[in-house]
Amino acid sequence: MGQERPKQPEQLVRVQNFTVSSDGFGAGEGQSLERPFGHAEPGEMFAWAGATASWPNRTDPGGSRGLDDCFTRDFARNIGAEIMGRNKFGPQRGPWTDHEWRGWWGDEPPFHTPVFVMTHHKRPSFTLSDTTFHFVDGDPATVLARAREAADGKDVRLGGGATTIREFLDAGLVDTLHVAVSPVRLGSGVRLWESPEELLDRYHLDVVPSPSGVTHHLFWRK
Amino acid sequence: MGQERPKQPEQLVRVQNFTVSSDGFGAGEGQSLERPFGHAEPGEMFAWAGATASWPNRTDPGGSRGLDDCFTRDFARNIGAEIMGRNKFGPQRGPWTDHEWRGWWGDEPPFHTPVFVMTHHKRPSFTLSDTTFHFVDGDPATVLARAREAADGKDVRLGGGATTIREFLDAGLVDTLHVAVSPVRLGSGVRLWESPEELLDRYHLDVVPSPSGVTHHLFWRK
Repeated sequence: MGQERPKQPEQLVRVQNFTVSSDGFGAGEGQSLERPFGHAEPGEMFAWAGATASWPNRTDPGGSRGLDDCFTRDFARNIGAEIMGRNKFGPQRGPWTDHEWRGWWGDEPPFHTPVFVMTHHKRPSFTLSDTTFHFVDGDPATVLARAREAADGKDVRLGGGATTIREFLDAGLVDTLHVAVSPVRLGSGVRLWESPEELLDRYHLDVVPSPSGVTHHLFWRK
Repeated sequence: MGQERPKQPEQLVRVQNFTVSSDGFGAGEGQSLERPFGHAEPGEMFAWAGATASWPNRTDPGGSRGLDDCFTRDFARNIGAEIMGRNKFGPQRGPWTDHEWRGWWGDEPPFHTPVFVMTHHKRPSFTLSDTTFHFVDGDPATVLARAREAADGKDVRLGGGATTIREFLDAGLVDTLHVAVSPVRLGSGVRLWESPEELLDRYHLDVVPSPSGVTHHLFWRK
């Protein structure tokens, strides 16, 4: 009591609304232009989020405002930048043959901040609506330093995919993770974990089942 | 698909982080200057919120970032005004004998928006830091119209107490309610409900137990 509230809140690195299958995969095998999540069906995996009022891609009114909506409406709060892996940005591999591909999200990407796409292959930055994509080569700490600066004091969202999240976890750079475990079983694909218990040496965990069928896992640093 | 996202999202009336005892009371009996919640112990009732990183009154770093924090960090998101009953503002009854009392919250109230205090007794508005308190006489719909205008397109928080929330519920003016049911039993006091089931004719409900011991109840309109 009597102390002043800290003027400089810490700048967190947050994973949010990342959905994995019941067996721990963030995407299936065989990503392509037609199948961004490989053999996984995004309509099944992300049904919990798409049904909420605050889903960023919602085009009509309505939607639920219960537990699942608490997470979709937190997506943009105090976020100043996003980091994503190249396979979240697109299905291409190797050097860019052209610069026509501008992500899966059309002319109005749902990020509204600078986005740092991790890739070994150079490409100029470009802007779509109020989202600017930068293409950056470097280890997680180096990329994070750039994203933190761009975020201007706000938090950095680590957008995935699973491989990128693993790299940042292994480097000890993630402050909070929200992972929705879907009842769908994939059998193979891009793995986030064998079990959420792998993180319990370093994180607190609240496990919260939702009426929609997913189980929300909320991790924060010990 | 292909539709534009609505440019004018609806302006909601939201109850948030309102805590009641297991037997449905928002406060105990015998409110006084020393006991804002009467015979209820606020340290017990609100322990779930005070333990979180995003609790507005937190003065030191730290705190949990799990399920309970999802609710405390949503407190200010897109809120443009608050409405409260006079007994949330202070322990006085009847005409104001002086204007020295400026609420329970010290020089930095946690609202940061206009606040409309419902009272039959006139009093001039005043400002503390970035919160301005207005004292308004009128039925819920009239007071809400003023708060909506002041909120400038953002949502209106209905702050309580239980009697004020009941009045707005009875008038059909509440869009979403988040009520945390604490394991504390009070026996008597200011009642919100006999049972949350009373609202099920008009609202959807997600019931979400928290590891902290409270059970979050999330209502939204059918």
